[in-house]
Order: sequence, then C-alpha cells, then structure tokens
Amino acid sequence: MITFENDYSCGAHPAVLQRLLETNLVPQPGYGEDAYSDSARRKIRAACGCSGAEVHFLSGGTQTNAIVLASILNAWEGVIAAQTGHIHVHEAGAPEALGVKVLALPEHQGKLDPEEVRALASALLKDENVEHMMYPGAVYISHPTEWGTLYTRAELTALSAVCREFGMRLYLDGARLAYGLMARDTDVDLPLIASVCDAFYIGGTKCGALCGEAVVFPHGAPAHFRNFIKKHGAMLAKGRLCGVQFDALFTDGLYGEIGRRGVETAEQLKTVLAKHGVPCYMDTPTNQQFAILENGQYNAIQEKVPVGFWSNPDPEHTIVRFATAWYTTDEYLEELDKILGR
Amino acid sequence: MITFENDYSCGAHPAVLQRLLETNLVPQPGYGEDAYSDSARRKIRAACGCSGAEVHFLSGGTQTNAIVLASILNAWEGVIAAQTGHIHVHEAGAPEALGVKVLALPEHQGKLDPEEVRALASALLKDENVEHMMYPGAVYISHPTEWGTLYTRAELTALSAVCREFGMRLYLDGARLAYGLMARDTDVDLPLIASVCDAFYIGGTKCGALCGEAVVFPHGAPAHFRNFIKKHGAMLAKGRLCGVQFDALFTDGLYGEIGRRGVETAEQLKTVLAKHGVPCYMDTPTNQQFAILENGQYNAIQEKVPVGFWSNPDPEHTIVRFATAWYTTDEYLEELDKILGR
Amino acid sequence: MITFENDYSCGAHPAVLQRLLETNLVPQPGYGEDAYSDSARRKIRAACGCSGAEVHFLSGGTQTNAIVLASILNAWEGVIAAQTGHIHVHEAGAPEALGVKVLALPEHQGKLDPEEVRALASALLKDENVEHMMYPGAVYISHPTEWGTLYTRAELTALSAVCREFGMRLYLDGARLAYGLMARDTDVDLPLIASVCDAFYIGGTKCGALCGEAVVFPHGAPAHFRNFIKKHGAMLAKGRLCGVQFDALFTDGLYGEIGRRGVETAEQLKTVLAKHGVPCYMDTPTNQQFAILENGQYNAIQEKVPVGFWSNPDPEHTIVRFATAWYTTDEYLEELDKILGR
Amino acid sequence: MITFENDYSCGAHPAVLQRLLETNLVPQPGYGEDAYSDSARRKIRAACGCSGAEVHFLSGGTQTNAIVLASILNAWEGVIAAQTGHIHVHEAGAPEALGVKVLALPEHQGKLDPEEVRALASALLKDENVEHMMYPGAVYISHPTEWGTLYTRAELTALSAVCREFGMRLYLDGARLAYGLMARDTDVDLPLIASVCDAFYIGGTKCGALCGEAVVFPHGAPAHFRNFIKKHGAMLAKGRLCGVQFDALFTDGLYGEIGRRGVETAEQLKTVLAKHGVPCYMDTPTNQQFAILENGQYNAIQEKVPVGFWSNPDPEHTIVRFATAWYTTDEYLEELDKILGR
Repeated sequence: MITFENDYSCGAHPAVLQRLLETNLVPQPGYGEDAYSDSARRKIRAACGCSGAEVHFLSGGTQTNAIVLASILNAWEGVIAAQTGHIHVHEAGAPEALGVKVLALPEHQGKLDPEEVRALASALLKDENVEHMMYPGAVYISHPTEWGTLYTRAELTALSAVCREFGMRLYLDGARLAYGLMARDTDVDLPLIASVCDAFYIGGTKCGALCGEAVVFPHGAPAHFRNFIKKHGAMLAKGRLCGVQFDALFTDGLYGEIGRRGVETAEQLKTVLAKHGVPCYMDTPTNQQFAILENGQYNAIQEKVPVGFWSNPDPEHTIVRFATAWYTTDEYLEELDKILGR
Repeated sequence: MITFENDYSCGAHPAVLQRLLETNLVPQPGYGEDAYSDSARRKIRAACGCSGAEVHFLSGGTQTNAIVLASILNAWEGVIAAQTGHIHVHEAGAPEALGVKVLALPEHQGKLDPEEVRALASALLKDENVEHMMYPGAVYISHPTEWGTLYTRAELTALSAVCREFGMRLYLDGARLAYGLMARDTDVDLPLIASVCDAFYIGGTKCGALCGEAVVFPHGAPAHFRNFIKKHGAMLAKGRLCGVQFDALFTDGLYGEIGRRGVETAEQLKTVLAKHGVPCYMDTPTNQQFAILENGQYNAIQEKVPVGFWSNPDPEHTIVRFATAWYTTDEYLEELDKILGR
Repeated sequence: MITFENDYSCGAHPAVLQRLLETNLVPQPGYGEDAYSDSARRKIRAACGCSGAEVHFLSGGTQTNAIVLASILNAWEGVIAAQTGHIHVHEAGAPEALGVKVLALPEHQGKLDPEEVRALASALLKDENVEHMMYPGAVYISHPTEWGTLYTRAELTALSAVCREFGMRLYLDGARLAYGLMARDTDVDLPLIASVCDAFYIGGTKCGALCGEAVVFPHGAPAHFRNFIKKHGAMLAKGRLCGVQFDALFTDGLYGEIGRRGVETAEQLKTVLAKHGVPCYMDTPTNQQFAILENGQYNAIQEKVPVGFWSNPDPEHTIVRFATAWYTTDEYLEELDKILGR
Repeated sequence: MITFENDYSCGAHPAVLQRLLETNLVPQPGYGEDAYSDSARRKIRAACGCSGAEVHFLSGGTQTNAIVLASILNAWEGVIAAQTGHIHVHEAGAPEALGVKVLALPEHQGKLDPEEVRALASALLKDENVEHMMYPGAVYISHPTEWGTLYTRAELTALSAVCREFGMRLYLDGARLAYGLMARDTDVDLPLIASVCDAFYIGGTKCGALCGEAVVFPHGAPAHFRNFIKKHGAMLAKGRLCGVQFDALFTDGLYGEIGRRGVETAEQLKTVLAKHGVPCYMDTPTNQQFAILENGQYNAIQEKVPVGFWSNPDPEHTIVRFATAWYTTDEYLEELDKILGR
C-alpha cells in the first residue's frame, strides 16, 4: 500500500520511535519540564544559532498558529497573511476563535510581496479611521508555503525590514520546514529564520514526529506563555512526548535527513509525472507537487493511490497534491509509475 | 529513580508502545479517519455497551473538558461543578476562555451532592432575574474525583435524574477512569457511565497512553463536532496516534490491567504510609493518596522522591499527593519505605 | 456651524426628543419590557407587514452586527460579505471578537453579486477539506451599502434564493435604512426586506435617534436571545430609551420623513458639487456622496467644513464622504456652495 | 403610578434632559470626540481631584465591567470578587464571554474582607501549580455593594494596599455611586476613590442619566482602549449622548443632588417599612433597602407596587428590594404607606 495523500500518513521516523522506546520508563516531571524537553530546547537553540531563544512544544500546527498569534498580537491588532495562507483558509476559523482577524493580501505562488505588505500597513496606519479598524500587528508567512514554494533570503530580509518599520512581528509557520531547509538552491537556513522572525515554529508532525511542533521565540516568549498554552488546552501532561521526539529530530542531523528524503523523492515524483504527461500547476522545490488532472483521471487515480484534493480550477479539472515525505520509498514511486502507465 | 509525583511521569504502557511500533509504517488517512481509530471506536462502543455512541479522540484533559463543555452548552448556559472541580481550579481558565462559566457548589470529598445540584438548578430557573444569570446547562463531575474518591452507582443515577429533571447534560471527566473502574468495591462500570451521562471521556494520558483522551457521546455528538475540534486547534493530523493507543488500551483487557496495577500499588502505598505514621487526608480507593506532612517532613521527602504539592491546610502543614500508576513497581514502594524510615 | 462629516453629527430629530420628554417621568419596567418598547415593536412589525416578527433593540450598529451574526451562526459557520462590508473593514474586529470569520467576496459598487455568492457557497460545500474550513452560514449585506448604493428588489430576491439553496441566513445591515427606503426609484420596501431576510436591523443612530437599532427577526429570534444580548453587555437597563425613540420614529411616518430629507439634501449636494466641478466617485442614490478631491483641495475644505475621510485611491487624491441627514438644512448647502466657490 | 422596583424606572433627571435639548442641533464629531464629552471629562477629572485621569464613556454597567476587566487583566489573570458580586451573579456570564474568570470569595454584607483577599492572592501565588491556575490580577468591588452597603475609607485603603502588595489592580463598580457618595456618615469621596483605584466607573444609568457610565482610569487607560471599546461593540457613534449627560450631571452639583434625594427617600422608606413591621434583611445606608416578606405578603404587594425580587432565603419567604432614586417623590412614600397599611 502506497500513498501520496499528504506527509502525515505514517507514524514517526523509526529513529524517533526508537528514542521513545528507550526513554519510556524513565520517570520525568510533567508539562514540558522534563530532561528530554530541556535537551531538545538546547539543541534547537544551537541549530538556530540563537542561545537566547525560548522554545515551547505544542501538539499541532493549527493550535500553534492560533496560540502564537493570539499571544503576540495586542487586542487592537490583526495579522496580515496571503489569501491562501493556512490560517486564512484551512484552519476552520481557529485564529478568529481567539479573536484574531486575518488581513488578507494577494498571493504570489503562495508568498506575500513585501511591497504589498508595506502598502497595506502604511495605508492602515495612515487611515483616519484606524481606530475602527485593525492595526497591522503581525505578518504570517509559511515556509514552505501552501504551494510548496520558498522565500529567498532576500525576500525574508525584506519582509522583516517592513515588519520592523511598522512595529509588526514576523511569524513563520514551518509546518514543513524540514523540506524547505533541504530544498535545492535555497539560501534560507534556521539561523536566518531566527534572525528575521519574532516567532516561528519548526514542524514535527509533517517532518517525522508522531505529533508536535517546536515554537521558537528568538527574543523571548510573551509573558506567562506557559499559562497561555494551558488556558488554551494545549499543554500536554506528558510534555516528554514532544521533548523526546524533538530531541531525536535534532540529534545527528535527523531533521535534515528527513527533509532531504522528502525533497529527493519529490524530484523523482516530478520525473514520473512528466513521463506520463501530467502537468504541474507550478514548479515547486519542496515535497508537495500540485498536478492538474482531468476529473476522470482524478477519479481513476484516486481509486489506486490516495492523493490530496486541492481545488477545482474549472469544472472539468482538479488540482491534486502529491506529497512525499521521509517515508516515501522507491516502491512508492515505482507503483505510481505503473498506475499512471495503465 | 522512583516517583510518586503523578500518574504521568513515564511514557506509555509497553503494550501501547509496541502497537505504535507495529503499525508505524502502514499509511493511513489523517485526522482520525484511519483504520486504527475506527477499530478503537468500535472497541470503546462495545466496552460501553452502547453501539450508537460517537467517539472522538483529543490529546489532553483540559482541552477535552473545555471543548466538550463549550460544545454541549448553549450560550446562555453555565456548568455546575464542585468547588474543587478540575475545570474550576486547575485549568487556568480554559473553560472561561471558551466563554463557559462555572457555577461552583460545595464539595463532599470531591463529589457533588445531587440534592445541592437540584437546589441550585431549581433556584436559578425560578429566579425572576434568570435572564441576567446563567441557566443551568450541564453538570461536571470527575470520576475518580480530584481527591481520588468515587461516586457510587446510586449517586450517579441520582445525579443523572436531577440532570434530566432540569434539562441539563451530565458530563463526566474520566482522566483517571481506569483506576476508578478497577477500585475495590466500586459498583460503577463503563455501561453505567454510558447510560447516565450525555458525554464523558475515558482518560488515556494518565492511564497508560503517551497522550489522548477518548470522548464518548452515548447519544451522538453535537453537530459538526469535528469542525469544532479543528476550530479549537485540537485535531491531530496524525489522528492515528490516539487511535492506535486506544485500540491497544481496549484490546485484551489492557485498560483494566492498567487500572488494577495502579489501585493495587496504591493499597500497598497506604500500608507503607501507615507503617511510618503518615496520616492520610482522607481514605480514597483509587491511585491517588493524599498525605498530611509537616512542612519540614515535606521538604525532606521531596529531596528524595518526587511527590505532588496539593495545598497548605495551615501554615505548618502541607498536603501532598502520592500517585501510583501502571508503572509503579515493587521497587518504588520498597524505596519509599526506606526513605520514610530514615 | 455646518457639517457633512457623517449622519450622526447632531442629536435626535426634535420629534424623537419631544417624545423622550413627554414620557420621562412615567415609571416603566427595565430591560426593554416597558410599554414604549412594546408599542415600538408593534409598529415595526406592522411597518414590516410581518406580525410574527421578533424585534429587539440594541444601542449601536457594530454591536448589533456582531451580536446578531454570532447568534445566527453556528460555531462551524462563517459569514460571506463584500470586501468593503462594514463588518470586514470598519468594526475593529468586532465579529472576530465573537469568533465570527468573514469570508470576503469582491464588491460591485459595494454590493455582493448573487452568482459569486452561489459560487463561493457551492465551492466551500463541495470542498473535500470543508471540515477544515468555515461552512457558509450567512450572507451579510448592507442597504444602503458602504458606498451608499442600493440593492434592487430583484437582487435581494436573488440573494435570498441563493441563501435558501445553501441553507444560509440572509442578514441585512440597515444602519442607514431610512435613506435607502426613501431613495428615488428604489423598489425595495420594509415588507420586502422582511420577506427575504432572516434578520435585519432598522437603523436609528444614523436616522434620527440619539442611539439605537431595531433588530428584526421575521421568523423569530434565536433561543434566549435576550440572555445573549445581556451576555455581550448590550442590554440597556433603561430599555425605554430605545423603545421611546423607535416608537416616535414609527409614528406618523417620521422614519420616512427623515429618510426623505436626507435624500433630498443629498440630491442638492450633488448639484453643488457638480457646479464646482468636483467629481463623484460613483453615482449614489442615498445620503452619502463620495467625492474625489486633490489632497490640497481636501485639506483646504477640511478647514472650513467637516467631511469624512474615506480612502486614498492614489497618493495625490483623497476620496471624501459628504453625508447629509435629517438635520441638513438649506443653510448647510448654501454655505458649502460658498466654500467651494472661494 | 409609583414604583420601588429599581432605580432605573424613569427616564433622565430633568436637568439632564434639558441639556440634551439645548445641545441637540449643534454639530459635533462622533465617537466621543465632541466638545460635550471633553467638557464632561474635564469636570469629572476635577471632581476626582485627578488631573491626569483618563475618562471614557460606555453605555451600561455590565458592558463596562466586562470591557474594563478584560482590558486591565492579562490573559493569565483572574479577578477576585465577592460571591454576591454583580459580575459573578447578575451579568449572564459577560466577563467569561471575554475570557475573564471570577475568583469568588465570601461576602460580608456584600463586601470583600481585605484579609481574605490577601490570603487568596498569597495562596495562589505560592501554589506550586499556579501555572495551571489563574493568577490574581484584579479585585472587583462595588460601592455601594449589591446589598447597598458601603466600604469605609479605611477598608478601601486596606484593599488598595493588598492590591499593591500583590500587583493587582483595584476596580470599583460605581453603578450607584451617587447614592454611595451622599450616604450619611460615609467618609468616602471621589478623590479617595481615584487615589485607591486603578479603574472605576461613575454610574450614570442608575443615577439620573438615560444611559451611560463614566469609566475613570486615574493613572491612564490601557493602550488603545478606544479601539478595544469599538472591538467589543461599545462605542456609540453619537458619543455626545453620554458626554452631554455627564456634563450636566457634573454641573452645579447635580450628581450629588441626585444621590442625596435617593438617600433621603430611602431613609423615609425605612421609616415606612418599620411602621408596618416589615423587617429589613440588613441595615443599609444607601438607596436600596432589602425587606423580608412572607411569600403571600410579597404577592399582595407586588400587585400594587412594583418591587424587585431578590432571593428566597427559605421556601416561605422572599427577600425583596425596595429601591429609591432621584425620581422618588413624597407621593411614592405616602402611597406605599397606604398599601402596607391595608
């Protein structure tokens, strides 16, 4: 059985599971105050080149986005995001459930344009009715984006400059960060992210963990952030579950290895799709590939291999996401080749 | 190294971890729509003797309480709970964060008195200012309670009758349900709970899982409950994580075995405490024992074995919780015997 | 002193104030249960041709929009609105503060296109990821719109049909309804609005009252709506304040007279603007006129007569709102004529 | 027709209404930026002897309590209040709707005991589980209290000291402040309140206005408080409505005169009740008197004169509130005398 439905179809990377096994019966304090979480935090700070960073573990991406945004925004501020941003489209109103309004801008292959961000922030702050509006408080980006695309070092630096200019915080959703960091030709690494962002998270769930995301506040977290986590039902009693996993992910380069495997298999996937004449919606350098299928083709493929529905660009076609991951084997690709060849 | 600090100090019961290992590389759909979650739901329904029950998995207790209460209450309704109820005291305002007001009643060894519930519900509904108050919408109980005590079948039936009389829903927090079900002399079992409650959860985190609680709605869940879970950031992408674990917990009587071990070691613990003249705050039949220590004694013990701070009944004494669990070994008890004997 | 800044620059229409004076010392029950509120409700039901309608009074428009939307939407639903909708742009995140997400569509002179509403609702409901999104629960329109434009009977009927097709509620924000009902050539009246909408409000604040909006639910209000009002801090102890005012507004055609005066003076205003070569941004039939001024011109005018800042279409120009109202006198227009002529 | 049901049964004090009449057609900016609001703010600052105070006008008490508390509390903080506090009992969960948890303490004739506040704050901050609880962030008191009783200067000073000791804010709900300030033998005045509180409101609705409460922040308001008001639907477009009224209330000692009349008539009321052998629940120095009636007596009286239901201390008796106000005339008292004498 194979799948390209998403990058969370299997359990944990074997090395992560192995570490859970090894540590299983060692008693530890709860709520993230265990030795494994401490160790993971140290390793993440080192990987980010940011010894003063504060690191917290949460269990999933939507939870993380809502809680972090609500914590870094003042009541009078909204968050700027791309029209296609995960928080705007695929989180069932989780930010709004915490009172956070999303200020949507056009997307450019899933990305925000720093100049458009500047124009919006500037317009809001100059508006004589701004008291009746949301002040621009933060900018949300994902890297990779919803379309699997990546910001460049120059783009992130430009976004960060706009944020500083207007007193906004820059928040990066790194649900699939492993695949972004390991993409070919990217000039973005963790230290850069830590230097340009006020908050970001290193994705675990989609990058080899059973669950868990590591939130990093390079300049320190909002006051009483742990209480805030608890108040929003997001503090795991067995905080070690995330601690052990992130400790494993940041040992011996495992996080990078996981990202590399996802990217390599995505490249192979592109070759298979091309071989069978399946067009891609755009060229993306990470582990998600978006193919345009005729509806009939979509239905036929779906019966043989799970893929992800994305959208209907027109009544006759379906855009489908093929996701690879650390668990995508050569067999997966060979089998897909056969399915498309039938 | 030993601990009596709580019942979530170690990882998962080995049989649970084993099952995670076995299923790790089998691809499955996300968000709880996997085969393991389905299987776990079937087994839970069977254990509850309630084939029409709807079962959902969430990751922790505070999250579960807040989300379930917010989903079963109308905007004009509050929830009645004991003054010591977990939702009122130890959840950092999580229910209130979702707009849920707690209507506190006195506790009787951690329990609500059905007659006091009736009196409060009756008084609220008769109050000519009720439009300016909260209507009584639900009753929250925990079983075992915060003090490790248990309701009897007669008490649960009486509470349920009061709830029906006033159109309130009965919700049971079963964070430590395994230990409650396996207590000596209890006449409460899962089918009874399913028959008297409108919603309850079977605790995983404190009963052998890495994380996870199984919410059971015997008469069906509120409409679009999955979307509600997502909106509150509580839907795990790898829903299989809870599914696999609960599938294991409800296979071959593992959940009962876990509860039994916790209760047996708690009985042994009582013997050790009594041997050393340590008084208990009350006699409780489950896995939590509350001892009254002089502050000096508390500090001395704390250095040698982790125990849980509970409260200061007076400036000279500390009430301390000793919790046992599925992972409490004979060695734990022998070591405690030595520590207390020094 | 004159003003065109908005339509809430003066106090109440003299007839409204007179009625407050007459009734001032007659004791009445609080919280909207007074005889004046009852009378106002009866008159509003009659004006709407809808004897079964439920009518509630709130104090302002933003409050009304947020409370009504939160009450008619389920937790899993969002509200569709034009990009320029007041709830999306000028309410400081009030809907989001109650957990309501706005699903924005393009505006067409401030209006929603029924076909675009249909396409969005249809796409959301067909989306395989809809559980992770907001279901389309309601459609928000304002009449007159933010641009002072009006829906036609055919357009409202079409929107209503789309709403029924998808189980959405239609909600109309009538902050300036008096001016809409009295516009030349409109074929929309209160009975039509009551027949196509599930909820709407008849604006008081901008149509002659000191404060107050009358919410009408033609098919009955959500359960315990009064408690919901109280919970959101919107229940006036002296409910008579709104009751007396709306009773006056719906006596002897006063509401219509107020609307008529606003529209007539707006027509005269257009003539004055045209006479001085000031271009309008669009042709609108109600009491708001949007003029395009060079920034220098804007600054100069602003010193002599208050007008409303609207937006900067480009760095050199400012769109300014000239609002007329029941209190706009001939002197206002003559004075403006002089100012523009200088 | 007479009434003792509450202190908001009539409209506005004639001098307040007169001022609304005089200012009615003078154009002013909206949203509280009018000259009347400015003038009222100046007069209130002067009356409080606090030239640096920030003053905002809201429309009602429940709204004011919820918004001010939510604005002065951090997310991790709750508010301490008496078990009988209005926010805890009679606001339909309005604080909780904004995520504010009430930490209830016993009441002593409606008042908090500073030592009990100190004990609770101290216990919370020392609790090793405080991260899972609410930090003590503010203390809510009402003056007069729900029972019409008053704090002394010494008690307020002691409460303020406790607040400063634990970093809590002191907030005073002055819904009926006029009657409290004018009570015989009180040693509490506005400058004292301004010097001990971090926030308080001067009640308008129950003290002679049609609506409106004046929130005073002696040391400045929370950042962007106006946007916060708007976000919670509480900003009146015609802010002048409150401004004009408070300007009148604080001109020529009107607020004091209103309070004095309420207190004097309450003293006369006590005499009437005593004359007819109706026992009072407690002796209160302000405009609310609580009488204990047999249920039959309650029903008989209710038919002849509106009084306020308070509670049922036992199944045979009803505690009833008789409220006087600025509009209570001698005729009211004579008529009550006759009714009780029948």
